[in-house]
Amino acid sequence: MATAAARAAIGDSEFDRDTAAVPRPGEPGTYDIDLSAGWMIISALNGGYLLAVLGRALREALPHHDPLTITAHYLTASQPGPAVVRTETVRSGRTMSTGQASLFQRDEDGQDVERLRVIAGYGDLDALPDDVRTSATPPPMASYANSVSSHDTPGVSPLPGSAAILDRLDLRLDPATAGWAVGAPSGAGRMRGWLGLADGRDHDALSLLLAADSLPATAFDLGLKGWTPTLELTVHVRSRPAPGPLRVSLSTRNLAGGLLEEDGEIWDSADRLVAQSRQLARAPRG
Amino acid sequence: MATAAARAAIGDSEFDRDTAAVPRPGEPGTYDIDLSAGWMIISALNGGYLLAVLGRALREALPHHDPLTITAHYLTASQPGPAVVRTETVRSGRTMSTGQASLFQRDEDGQDVERLRVIAGYGDLDALPDDVRTSATPPPMASYANSVSSHDTPGVSPLPGSAAILDRLDLRLDPATAGWAVGAPSGAGRMRGWLGLADGRDHDALSLLLAADSLPATAFDLGLKGWTPTLELTVHVRSRPAPGPLRVSLSTRNLAGGLLEEDGEIWDSADRLVAQSRQLARAPRG
Repeated sequence: MATAAARAAIGDSEFDRDTAAVPRPGEPGTYDIDLSAGWMIISALNGGYLLAVLGRALREALPHHDPLTITAHYLTASQPGPAVVRTETVRSGRTMSTGQASLFQRDEDGQDVERLRVIAGYGDLDALPDDVRTSATPPPMASYANSVSSHDTPGVSPLPGSAAILDRLDLRLDPATAGWAVGAPSGAGRMRGWLGLADGRDHDALSLLLAADSLPATAFDLGLKGWTPTLELTVHVRSRPAPGPLRVSLSTRNLAGGLLEEDGEIWDSADRLVAQSRQLARAPRG
Repeated sequence: MATAAARAAIGDSEFDRDTAAVPRPGEPGTYDIDLSAGWMIISALNGGYLLAVLGRALREALPHHDPLTITAHYLTASQPGPAVVRTETVRSGRTMSTGQASLFQRDEDGQDVERLRVIAGYGDLDALPDDVRTSATPPPMASYANSVSSHDTPGVSPLPGSAAILDRLDLRLDPATAGWAVGAPSGAGRMRGWLGLADGRDHDALSLLLAADSLPATAFDLGLKGWTPTLELTVHVRSRPAPGPLRVSLSTRNLAGGLLEEDGEIWDSADRLVAQSRQLARAPRG
């Protein structure tokens, strides 16, 4: 998305505005938010966006700033509109704290329904020691320029139907994992892509939570079609990402019992493994 | 451990007795347990044992029987003796339910201290469809007979010092990942072993939770020494294990910022990938 417009800054972007929850006066740890329809996929809000919403509320509630490990259980489908985040400080340590948060929306009968629940360990990425000993290597994938933008190629949509979230992302799939979009899935269960935000905002620890659930489902590369609802998603944030688009690499090795795992690696422009993720999802029937 | 004694049965074994929590009359979802010193490593109870204790309490509390995905955050070190498990049913669905549980122990001042908290999705492994499409292959490792038993080789102890848990396990390390015990770690960050229970009980979904945190730390194979405390551990149980010892394969690719991940695969005797795990742990200083 080459654009003449100014790039949005961290703290002043679509993502930041749409994840901002407002502390409710007189109720410590409780936040109100209007969930934005801009992060819809078909008929529900994206799970990575919701994880970022709760991750940001926990940043406010806890003494530490950065999610180091966060796990979400998705209970019911979230819809755009008003929602309440209730947080609990489980433990406050010197270098790390643990928190829990839930998102609620009101149903037609006026009852609060829990949408998702997360538990997370927070710390300060900048305060961690500098040691790095890694045997992980960046995923082999096509360059940004040679990848397939969902904006330029209408056929490459994560799902049949409308996906508003694509307007918020600068998502470019590695052609090697985009064959499913033209009826030729590789069968390997892989999905790789470059991921920026459409308004040019660089990534931070919170947008890594979005990135962990922003690519099309690996099930599509297995030749399956349809909805792949996430049951549980865990993200480890291992480093603050450098500016520039991320490389996100997902793989599924084991589809069994109607369930599949999606293992994710997120690499930044400095070739650092900045996050690892794994989710358990229900496999599409198709 | 060839033994002439009868093999313990699932439901009547050391593991079953030591994970049995008793419902507290008049307090639905609350259970009392006397945590057994038999699962100690050095100065704390093993994290896999504690996960199994909470996993079993959730089995009692929830309408579904088997943990499909369970995440624990370890807050403070658990000690042998009385403890209370408090469970919450978060959501009950037709095929899956979600629960949360915490373990508490009383400190010297008589205050309840939370030891660990878990959130989990339960289902019924036997009710899942039979489809299996997997590209995962069992870990390359030495046979059971050619692996190094912690009972036969005193040098091969997960940590310097006493580890009562080794008397409860039939743990045989692949010699390729046991060099650290004689001062020759491979540096690859791997740990592989065969894992049975010492009394001959076969594995089930609950003992997979124990198995996910029963091998020596991968950090030892990186040449590091000392305690590697688990901050968070997630286990996906993908199938009920067949009888016989498990193969457990752990790997660490990324040590950074004083933290490391341990990725685990657990394979059963029928060559099925029965569980996947990942933990975030604090790296030893050594």
